[in-house]
Amino acid sequence: MRGLDHPPIGGIDLVTVLDALADPVRLGIVALLADGDERPCVSFEFGITAASMSHHFRVLRVAGLTRTRQDGRHRWITLRRNELDARFPGLLAPLLAAAWADHGT
Amino acid sequence: MRGLDHPPIGGIDLVTVLDALADPVRLGIVALLADGDERPCVSFEFGITAASMSHHFRVLRVAGLTRTRQDGRHRWITLRRNELDARFPGLLAPLLAAAWADHGT
Repeated sequence: MRGLDHPPIGGIDLVTVLDALADPVRLGIVALLADGDERPCVSFEFGITAASMSHHFRVLRVAGLTRTRQDGRHRWITLRRNELDARFPGLLAPLLAAAWADHGT
Repeated sequence: MRGLDHPPIGGIDLVTVLDALADPVRLGIVALLADGDERPCVSFEFGITAASMSHHFRVLRVAGLTRTRQDGRHRWITLRRNELDARFPGLLAPLLAAAWADHGT
């Protein structure tokens, strides 16, 4: 099994974060995580293949936006809300609101 | 001369905006425009060719982030600050602050 690497907060880059968010599915995932709850990866339904969803989860994780936890055969995902708020003060709340308005489900 | 089209505020899409900003030069341009002043396009110096700068200005304009004004042989650029604030409430200020912190010059 591949390891699940997460970049340290100081290594989170604004360009990479914006690039990771510049996708309707990934914005939708992040909007659904905005409440702070950890969710099972299988619970997200965007009408695309599991492989495509895995790709999107990976992009979000590598960019530093989310934390993925392996639990047996299942993966759970959370937004790195507090760390992102520390790194980019005030950015996440209006971004999530805009994401929810445009891409919430 | 090509016309300078600007999308109406209602047509500004979050994914397109984020994609346009996911570039260090374009973040740098936007950070320099954060004060609201209109600036001559030739005043931006990022150590890249004029053709590359034109490309970046075009991406920002087409995404709805900036307004470009032709004045004889010169072009001037401003951030569509008020319109963007209306379209994505609260988003621009922290984004510009983060852009300035990471990519200001």
